[in-house]
Amino acid sequence: MSPESPDLPDISAVWEAHRRIRSLVNLTPVLASDGLNAELGCELLCKCEHLQRTGAFKFRGASNAVVHLREAGISGAVATHSSGNHGSALALAASLDQRTAHVVMPDNASALKVDAVRRNGGIVHFCSPTQTDRESGLARLVQAGHIPIPPYDHFDIIAGQGTAALELVESNPGLDILIAPVGGGGLIGGTALVANDRGIIAYAAEPAGAADTAASMALGHRVNSFHPDTIADGLRALVGERNFLIIQQHVKQVLTVEEEEIRSAMVLFWRYTRMLIEPSSAVVIAALRRYPHLFSGKKVGAIISGANIHPREWLALTEMVE
Amino acid sequence: MSPESPDLPDISAVWEAHRRIRSLVNLTPVLASDGLNAELGCELLCKCEHLQRTGAFKFRGASNAVVHLREAGISGAVATHSSGNHGSALALAASLDQRTAHVVMPDNASALKVDAVRRNGGIVHFCSPTQTDRESGLARLVQAGHIPIPPYDHFDIIAGQGTAALELVESNPGLDILIAPVGGGGLIGGTALVANDRGIIAYAAEPAGAADTAASMALGHRVNSFHPDTIADGLRALVGERNFLIIQQHVKQVLTVEEEEIRSAMVLFWRYTRMLIEPSSAVVIAALRRYPHLFSGKKVGAIISGANIHPREWLALTEMVE
Repeated sequence: MSPESPDLPDISAVWEAHRRIRSLVNLTPVLASDGLNAELGCELLCKCEHLQRTGAFKFRGASNAVVHLREAGISGAVATHSSGNHGSALALAASLDQRTAHVVMPDNASALKVDAVRRNGGIVHFCSPTQTDRESGLARLVQAGHIPIPPYDHFDIIAGQGTAALELVESNPGLDILIAPVGGGGLIGGTALVANDRGIIAYAAEPAGAADTAASMALGHRVNSFHPDTIADGLRALVGERNFLIIQQHVKQVLTVEEEEIRSAMVLFWRYTRMLIEPSSAVVIAALRRYPHLFSGKKVGAIISGANIHPREWLALTEMVE
Repeated sequence: MSPESPDLPDISAVWEAHRRIRSLVNLTPVLASDGLNAELGCELLCKCEHLQRTGAFKFRGASNAVVHLREAGISGAVATHSSGNHGSALALAASLDQRTAHVVMPDNASALKVDAVRRNGGIVHFCSPTQTDRESGLARLVQAGHIPIPPYDHFDIIAGQGTAALELVESNPGLDILIAPVGGGGLIGGTALVANDRGIIAYAAEPAGAADTAASMALGHRVNSFHPDTIADGLRALVGERNFLIIQQHVKQVLTVEEEEIRSAMVLFWRYTRMLIEPSSAVVIAALRRYPHLFSGKKVGAIISGANIHPREWLALTEMVE
């Protein structure tokens, strides 16, 4: 595929993904909280993808990619590099399809995430924690004949992640707004396809310390270097090519938030729902709080993306704001 | 009501409660986890009452009692004593009915729980942390004309708590077993009524350090003194009179678990669902693990009762078993 014309999924690809993976994914609950609504001044419906299998939305895209391989008659092991949720999601998706998943992980990856990949049947290949080493580690696996499944810049991944928003709008008509975090852009890409199809406004939420997508939107093209500095470890990636094209078309605005706002949002969410969410998920709640004029009185669907954080780390990140 | 013939709810009272409170309560999700199923050797469906309003099932009984008052034309403030979830549940239920709730709380109650009562609109009356002082504090409020709503030994409370199991069996046919924790017995009482109505086996789970219900079952009458010593703070109460009568009739066995098993179960539940639950809730998971011969290969519905624990306390309770 040439960089000038990448293959972009559309809403029919999201429906196709839904058909493929509906029996594999958790139909995650949609939860509301009076307390959060009062704090945020809107009617918030949280699509709880942090209660998805492997603790994050990532399982949707990974399983869509793997089932698509099966339907296309392509056998063999899959491979990726990941410091986080995509790795364990791909491990589980592959395992359910009787395949092996090889996951290149930086040797400073958290024990929690390494354990998750292994528990889901994946084979971990450690590398030094640089982008170059991660990519060369993956390149070796691909040379060995394994099928690469990238974490976000991929037709099936974007379409698969969109199924969370699809379930949300199907079960909750009348939403004014959909909002999701943006890192590489898999989740917001799929979410924006669904929003556009229903005439719903889509916003992306991004840490100011990893605001390459906001910068890219301002410039009209992808920035290709940005040194991310944020506690939201799931959002440190640069936005992908396909992802950015969809965001440009269908996302109204990328809303940036500061680190302290993310920490406060983690505490706020816990206070009213008693659930711990990753900083990458709290970015959405932080955006609702920081830009109230956009959300006031609206019916807002938010994708809560992941809960893969150890309570100890959650405490360390939030103790200053409690 | 004489002690010889207390008014006992039956399944029609649970349905009546369901009618009363269905628009007030969260229809909590039912979640499953492959990992938990593999660990426990059964097909476990968790009714997530820890995601109920106020973070625990207690809101069901409290709102059933308050709405019943309204339907009976009885106005005025309500009152209770509580060191925990019943207080905040009654505060919210009263507040939604434009009533005041007075809650007598021991002066060593956790800040989290005092905050929860106040945030839900309740008025806190501190007393010293003895049963005598709690009861005399409540007696003064009742003398002042307020309506007492006890936490578990009450027709409407038991019937209201049963609505969690009712929702569970309505949405998930084919359960072999229902299991819930027992403290005062409101939750297991209502759960057992539903189980009996459907021909489902009911088990109660109880900490060995607060096993007055197991002892009472063995003796054939309620023990009236037991010094509870358990981390499961929600289960330290002695089983109530009405509650015990229902348990005797409809609960097959009270399964006791040790403190270390409760701590391990908290970690196990978090590992596979990424949710923090109170020790009182983890008692059920601990029982599934300790008595595998009762559950092996069965379809088991478990009421996960509450999530009102600060992450700091969760860590302190679990750090030795991780």
